Amino acid sequence: MKDYIHFAESLADAGRTTIRDALRKPFDLEIKPDGSPVTAVDKAVEDAMRALISDRFPGHGILGEERQDSAPDAEMKWIIDPIDGTLPFLAGIPVFGTLIALVRGEVPVLGIIDMPMTGERWVGCEGQATTRNGSPVRSRACGELSQALMSSSNPDFYGERDRPALGRMNAATRWCVYGGSCMAYGQIASGRIDLGIDVNFDIHDYLALVPVIQGAGGAITDWDGAGLTVNSGDRFVAAGDPRVHAQALAVLNAEG
Amino acid sequence: MKDYIHFAESLADAGRTTIRDALRKPFDLEIKPDGSPVTAVDKAVEDAMRALISDRFPGHGILGEERQDSAPDAEMKWIIDPIDGTLPFLAGIPVFGTLIALVRGEVPVLGIIDMPMTGERWVGCEGQATTRNGSPVRSRACGELSQALMSSSNPDFYGERDRPALGRMNAATRWCVYGGSCMAYGQIASGRIDLGIDVNFDIHDYLALVPVIQGAGGAITDWDGAGLTVNSGDRFVAAGDPRVHAQALAVLNAEG
Repeated sequence: MKDYIHFAESLADAGRTTIRDALRKPFDLEIKPDGSPVTAVDKAVEDAMRALISDRFPGHGILGEERQDSAPDAEMKWIIDPIDGTLPFLAGIPVFGTLIALVRGEVPVLGIIDMPMTGERWVGCEGQATTRNGSPVRSRACGELSQALMSSSNPDFYGERDRPALGRMNAATRWCVYGGSCMAYGQIASGRIDLGIDVNFDIHDYLALVPVIQGAGGAITDWDGAGLTVNSGDRFVAAGDPRVHAQALAVLNAEG
Repeated sequence: MKDYIHFAESLADAGRTTIRDALRKPFDLEIKPDGSPVTAVDKAVEDAMRALISDRFPGHGILGEERQDSAPDAEMKWIIDPIDGTLPFLAGIPVFGTLIALVRGEVPVLGIIDMPMTGERWVGCEGQATTRNGSPVRSRACGELSQALMSSSNPDFYGERDRPALGRMNAATRWCVYGGSCMAYGQIASGRIDLGIDVNFDIHDYLALVPVIQGAGGAITDWDGAGLTVNSGDRFVAAGDPRVHAQALAVLNAEG
C-alpha cells in the first residue's frame, strides 16, 4: 500500500496547488440541473488528478464527481471529490477540501482528506494508524451520546424523510456544530469532535472518510449499520467512539 | 483614529498569540449556567486584552464577554469577545475569531475581526475603507435577494420566536451556508457572501462587525432596521448590498 499512499498524496498535492492558484483570480460558476453549484475550479482539480491517475495506473477506474466515470468495473478504483463543500468554497469559509479514496472491489482501503486553505491533511489506510500531517492521530473516548459534540454539514440538506432524525440527534447530543464539511470528519479522527452525520451525500463525499475514521479507532457506517461501499446509499454516521456510534444508530432509527 | 487602530491591532495580535499558544496543549472546559461552553482560553485572551487596555487607556470602559464590565458608562469603551464561535473552537473548525470594537458613546466607530487560525484580519473604522490584511476590500453588488448567498451561524440558536423567520429567509435566498461564525461577516465585507443573519447574539458578538461591514459598502442593522448600539437587542442582519439588506428586512418582518 505504501506506493498507493505516496501516489495519493501526490494527487492531493496537485489538487491543493490547483485550488490555491485558482483562488487568486475570479472563476466561473455554473448551476447544475439539481440546483447545486459547481465551479470551473472543481473541474480543473478533477482533470488534474484524472491525468495523473491515467498516466500512472492506466488499468484503474476513476469515479469523479464532475466528469464521466472511466472503467467503473475495474478492481482498483479512485473515487475523487475535487472540492467537497462547494458552498463554503464559494463563501470563502476554509472548511472545503479535496477527497480521494482508493477502492478495492467495493471497499475503500485508502482515504485522504486534504484542506487546501489550512494546510491540514488526514491520511487513512487499512491496517495502519491514520495520520494528520504525518503524525498518528487517535479519536477520543466518549461513552455517552448525551456528552457528544456532534457535527453535520448543512441542515438544509435534510429533506422531509430525514429531518426528524436530525431533530432527535440534536436532542440526544450535547452540542451540534454545522458547516464543518469534510474537515469535521478529520476532526473526529483527531479527537476534537465525537460524532458526524450527513445525508444526501454520495460515494465521492464519504468513501475517503472511511479509512481515516477507522484508522483512528472510530466507526463509520450507513444508517443501518452496514459498512460503506461503492454501492451504499446517501446517509452515513461516523463516531470517534464505537459506543457512541451504536447509540447514534439507535436514535437515528427510532420511531417518530 | 489612527492611534486607536494601531492599538486595536496590538490587542488582536495579543489575542492571536494567546490562542495559538493555548492550542498546543489541553485546556479546561466549563459549562456556563445557560449551557454554553467557555474555556480557559477565552478567559486568558480576555485578561491579556484587558491588561493592555487598562494600561494604555485607563479612562476607557471595558465590556468583555467573560469578565465583569469595568467603567461601562465611560464615553470610550472597548467591547471584546475573546473567542467568537466557541463551538467551532472546541471542534477544531477554523472559523472562530477574536472580536474587538471601540464604541464612542453608544456607537461602534472601530471594529476588528481577527482569525487566529487562518491569519486573516478585517479592520473597519468610521470614515475609511475596510481592510483585510491591510488591503482595502469592497462588498459585492447583489440586487436581488433570490440571488443571494446567505449565512447564519447555527440554526440551533433559533428559538420558537425566530425559527419561522429563518425558514422564510431560506426560501427567499439562493443558498445558505452555516457555521461561518464571525468569519462570514468578514467575507461579506470581502464580497464572497451577500447576506448574514443571526439571533441570540449580544453586543460582544456584533458591534465589531458594524464598522467592518459599513466601511466595505454594506449595511448592518437590527431586524427593525435600526443601527446597532450598545443598547441593541439580540438579532441583526448584514448585507453587502443595501438593496438586499432592505429586501431581507421585509422578509424577516413578514407575517407567518
